[in-house]
Amino acid sequence: DDAATRAVLSGMEETVGELMTPVTATLPANNTVAEALTFMVKSADVSEISYIFVTESDRLVGVVGMRDLILAKPSDALSSIMVLEPFAFQEDTPVKEAVSEVLYRHYRMYPVVDEQRHVMGEVRGWKLYERIASELSAQAGSQYGVAKEEQINTPVLSAFRMRHPWLQVNLITAFAAAFVVGMFESTIAQIVALAAFLPVLAGQSGNTGCQALAITLRGITLGQINDYPIRRLLRKEILLGALNGAAVGVIAGIAMFAYAQSIDSANPAMLGLVIFIAMVGACMGSGIFGVAVPLMLKRFGADPATASSIFLTTFTDIIGMGLMLFLATSLVL
Amino acid sequence: DDAATRAVLSGMEETVGELMTPVTATLPANNTVAEALTFMVKSADVSEISYIFVTESDRLVGVVGMRDLILAKPSDALSSIMVLEPFAFQEDTPVKEAVSEVLYRHYRMYPVVDEQRHVMGEVRGWKLYERIASELSAQAGSQYGVAKEEQINTPVLSAFRMRHPWLQVNLITAFAAAFVVGMFESTIAQIVALAAFLPVLAGQSGNTGCQALAITLRGITLGQINDYPIRRLLRKEILLGALNGAAVGVIAGIAMFAYAQSIDSANPAMLGLVIFIAMVGACMGSGIFGVAVPLMLKRFGADPATASSIFLTTFTDIIGMGLMLFLATSLVL
Repeated sequence: DDAATRAVLSGMEETVGELMTPVTATLPANNTVAEALTFMVKSADVSEISYIFVTESDRLVGVVGMRDLILAKPSDALSSIMVLEPFAFQEDTPVKEAVSEVLYRHYRMYPVVDEQRHVMGEVRGWKLYERIASELSAQAGSQYGVAKEEQINTPVLSAFRMRHPWLQVNLITAFAAAFVVGMFESTIAQIVALAAFLPVLAGQSGNTGCQALAITLRGITLGQINDYPIRRLLRKEILLGALNGAAVGVIAGIAMFAYAQSIDSANPAMLGLVIFIAMVGACMGSGIFGVAVPLMLKRFGADPATASSIFLTTFTDIIGMGLMLFLATSLVL
Repeated sequence: DDAATRAVLSGMEETVGELMTPVTATLPANNTVAEALTFMVKSADVSEISYIFVTESDRLVGVVGMRDLILAKPSDALSSIMVLEPFAFQEDTPVKEAVSEVLYRHYRMYPVVDEQRHVMGEVRGWKLYERIASELSAQAGSQYGVAKEEQINTPVLSAFRMRHPWLQVNLITAFAAAFVVGMFESTIAQIVALAAFLPVLAGQSGNTGCQALAITLRGITLGQINDYPIRRLLRKEILLGALNGAAVGVIAGIAMFAYAQSIDSANPAMLGLVIFIAMVGACMGSGIFGVAVPLMLKRFGADPATASSIFLTTFTDIIGMGLMLFLATSLVL
């Protein structure tokens, strides 16, 4: 548990070397197909062989598939039927990088080589697919500080140890939001209706921000973000925030107007307008932070999903509730 | 977009038949290895062949791998070297079910058969892995109402159309929380310090609930939940909620006590106790709903992740803030 937590916190990544197994079949390039067949017949783990890795001076120069062997003449040299300069991983290739190659290449087995292309071992395609699945299934939970290792049958105390630290982080960030609300206590004391709209502002900006977060995380995981201009992504989310905030803000504003009027609160129209403006502003800000939080976590070397929702909702809480209370103080009081 | 949205909403699932391609190599069981080799040499798409599916009276009875062909004598009948009763999918096998077989079997290619085991086609292992990845990467977003199809480069208006309906749902659910807070307006008017603790309660119970949600969703996706007693999962999350709520609630309670004392609020000790009890109760309730929301969505035939966070935070908001305000009204006023 501790090692995994440290790995996540420090952004350390498993490497291909750690998933590697000893190579099952390497043969020199001047061997013939007949010699390769003899090698296979004698091989103890023939059932594990998917490709023969072909070497020259011990360096990987080609790969021969089972189909190639079948279609060749027994006297053919492996060098004459092999696929040249085969794709290979290095031992220190991070699994995350390897994974995007696998999503594109779909091989059954990948050779692992050192700097001089000596064959160090092999890694099965499905092991890397399994890692993709495990990374992706971890993402939904790690936003809230749920560790990759936790399963439904993890004992309570282990689950507590893994989850609790993030709840303490969440508490500290929640205090920041509480501090902002506390600053406007006299405003709330004068217009108590605002208290009822605190969860509405927080809820909307939180969900809008988490939508932007989800799309940004997806882009990072699928490797799309590398060649995509961040500025364009930010512009899109700000615009979306404005559209979503306006469409939701109109309804929330009308609700505030109706509510304020029903309880004979001062200036119901202005209160409705405050809710509308706060909603638009909060949703635009949420879009910015939804993009920024995972990118910042990545920049700091952490997994971009780690506790991202915890950090994000702090910002969206502060923007949403803070903006509403600030506007009410400025425009209504 | 519409078809996909409808599929998600109605819980319809893609079937293996939709990922299937025409079969590349089937041969009768009485063919010899030499005949199989001739067939392969003549085959137009030899590079696509990974296995030869072996039939008797047109029904799938075995499978022969490339390695088996290499190691056999040319005069051997396929029936003598084939693996008997090979695993096969049906055309109507849901992709979600197929995926758990793939995670366990790791074959390169799977035959697809009808009820009488006639070979209808084949489906590549990596296509199913790709589906796993797409399902899992969708999960983090669909909690907030982000569609599986949305990517960072999706145009703003398409993104708006896909995301906005869920924000309107979120608004309606937020009004429910606002209504609860509104019920206690006179309490807030008398103890304004409570307003600052609204985001603290909502934030903690929300994140605790989302942790339980993440683990439950993970269990559903990985197929672990089928043979796991729900009652035990609920018991675990309630206990975890109590532990997490108590450990966080002590700090939040002390903070409330200190704050209330600093602003000369009435009965600061009791206010601190209210925060502590509310935090424990809210986190326990959040654990229950974190398990219940995805299971209910599944029961109603929807994708268990769909908007789950939106529904969940409604419950956690109401429990967290409602419990705090109710206790303050009962115990402090």
